[in-house]
Amino acid sequence: MKLYIAKGAGFCFGVKRAIDIAFKVADEHKGGVYTLGPIIHNPQVIEELEAMGVHPVKNVSGLRGKKVGAVIVRTHGVTLQVMNSLVSKGYNVIDATCPYVKKAQYYAKLLKDEGYQVVVLGSKEHPEVKGILSFAGKGAVVVKDPSELPRLKQKVGVVVQTTRHVDSLKELLGAIVGQIRELKVYNTLCSSTTQRLKETEELARKVDVMVIVGGKNSANTTQLANLCRSLNVPTHHVETASKLRKKWFEGAERIAISAGASTPDRLIKDVERKIKSYWRKGH
Amino acid sequence: MKLYIAKGAGFCFGVKRAIDIAFKVADEHKGGVYTLGPIIHNPQVIEELEAMGVHPVKNVSGLRGKKVGAVIVRTHGVTLQVMNSLVSKGYNVIDATCPYVKKAQYYAKLLKDEGYQVVVLGSKEHPEVKGILSFAGKGAVVVKDPSELPRLKQKVGVVVQTTRHVDSLKELLGAIVGQIRELKVYNTLCSSTTQRLKETEELARKVDVMVIVGGKNSANTTQLANLCRSLNVPTHHVETASKLRKKWFEGAERIAISAGASTPDRLIKDVERKIKSYWRKGH
Repeated sequence: MKLYIAKGAGFCFGVKRAIDIAFKVADEHKGGVYTLGPIIHNPQVIEELEAMGVHPVKNVSGLRGKKVGAVIVRTHGVTLQVMNSLVSKGYNVIDATCPYVKKAQYYAKLLKDEGYQVVVLGSKEHPEVKGILSFAGKGAVVVKDPSELPRLKQKVGVVVQTTRHVDSLKELLGAIVGQIRELKVYNTLCSSTTQRLKETEELARKVDVMVIVGGKNSANTTQLANLCRSLNVPTHHVETASKLRKKWFEGAERIAISAGASTPDRLIKDVERKIKSYWRKGH
Repeated sequence: MKLYIAKGAGFCFGVKRAIDIAFKVADEHKGGVYTLGPIIHNPQVIEELEAMGVHPVKNVSGLRGKKVGAVIVRTHGVTLQVMNSLVSKGYNVIDATCPYVKKAQYYAKLLKDEGYQVVVLGSKEHPEVKGILSFAGKGAVVVKDPSELPRLKQKVGVVVQTTRHVDSLKELLGAIVGQIRELKVYNTLCSSTTQRLKETEELARKVDVMVIVGGKNSANTTQLANLCRSLNVPTHHVETASKLRKKWFEGAERIAISAGASTPDRLIKDVERKIKSYWRKGH
């Protein structure tokens, strides 16, 4: 049996940075530290932070009546309105928005200011996309694929949720360009996501079983699993090693592990160890 | 037998305008009128204009020693250098560049001025493309498809030869966007070309024989013929009705005619009449 691990699996730059910030702020404040929503989409990391005194609240009104030492804005960022609300209420705001997401917000605003109708490629429900959209002005739309495009104005600007697949951007531009006269695109895809998708795809093409490790609520992790499934490889998405089942690997000669940007290395290692233990027992 | 004629076949707005200008200038000057290159890529129209005293010369030095009443710049436009040379030599320049081509030149310059590396999608050898390229600054490149793309800078601007197929623009954007951070595209495709390609393709899909009428030296006419051939329809590209052969139509139940932007209506009518005469004789 051969076991491969995607090199880009696990915490990306933006997630590492946000978690470092959270631990540092927790240390400085000893309680009273809140994040707007879970800081990353990984339940295991959230538990650790809870133990350190960093508590997620659902929204700004969830802070009411609490002794708030600091409010951490998570990697996904928040809408312009939420940021304004936090600042105007006088909270100590610690901005851990991923710098790549910040860029996407900035470019959405720039396109709007330059008179473009902004199209955000992404999932309407994803907090990152909600944040970006809030900078994109009136008439801006979010689409997850070309079928959702409305009738467009003649000047269209495009930004992308940082964790999409580059192919969906290519497809979108193809659908837009024939309809309009001017198109400006900021490729705000994060390079580590692109790399991770590419490596995961390459592995999926050569193995018998794929294991994707990470939060079930993590969009970028789920995307990895869906990518592998679309290539017809038996694929298992688990949050922790305890969810692995030996029978998934029966007869498999090549297995690969990949993981989302919000998956701690520790959980990936656990999965690796457990799969190797099946192998040892089986031979 | 059923005979279809593409609605968009024949002179486009820019060609009509240029020919009107040529006849008007010929009338005003009674001789001594020159065009830089044939005013459109159609030998039959060029002959008529010759008879009116409008003579093509190959280049600016071809004007030397001649009594020049006016120099007409044809629909394709000229390079910035040629225009400067004409003006600095004091010629009476009549600019019949197609307004859509002018726009492509203008946008190439705008992209250059905004710091983009300009990519022109088109044929290196086509005079329109040479003209556009001359406005696009250092580092600008012409590519006919993605395989010709060089290593790109991070800010890329795209303009298109006005007579390309929209699919080649889509394909190019797809190939560029994954490599760069910022992409600005002016869709300088001329809508009548796009319409003509679309109609011709639709006809080619439903007939047994296609006839394309127009100059063998006309890129946009040749493109129509190649499009039909790529759809595996027997296709004949003729300059005049005299080149038609009855045997091409034996057994054909549906026939269609299309023609390039530089093909006079008269030549299309001639072809239509001749094909109908085969049919009458044959039944």
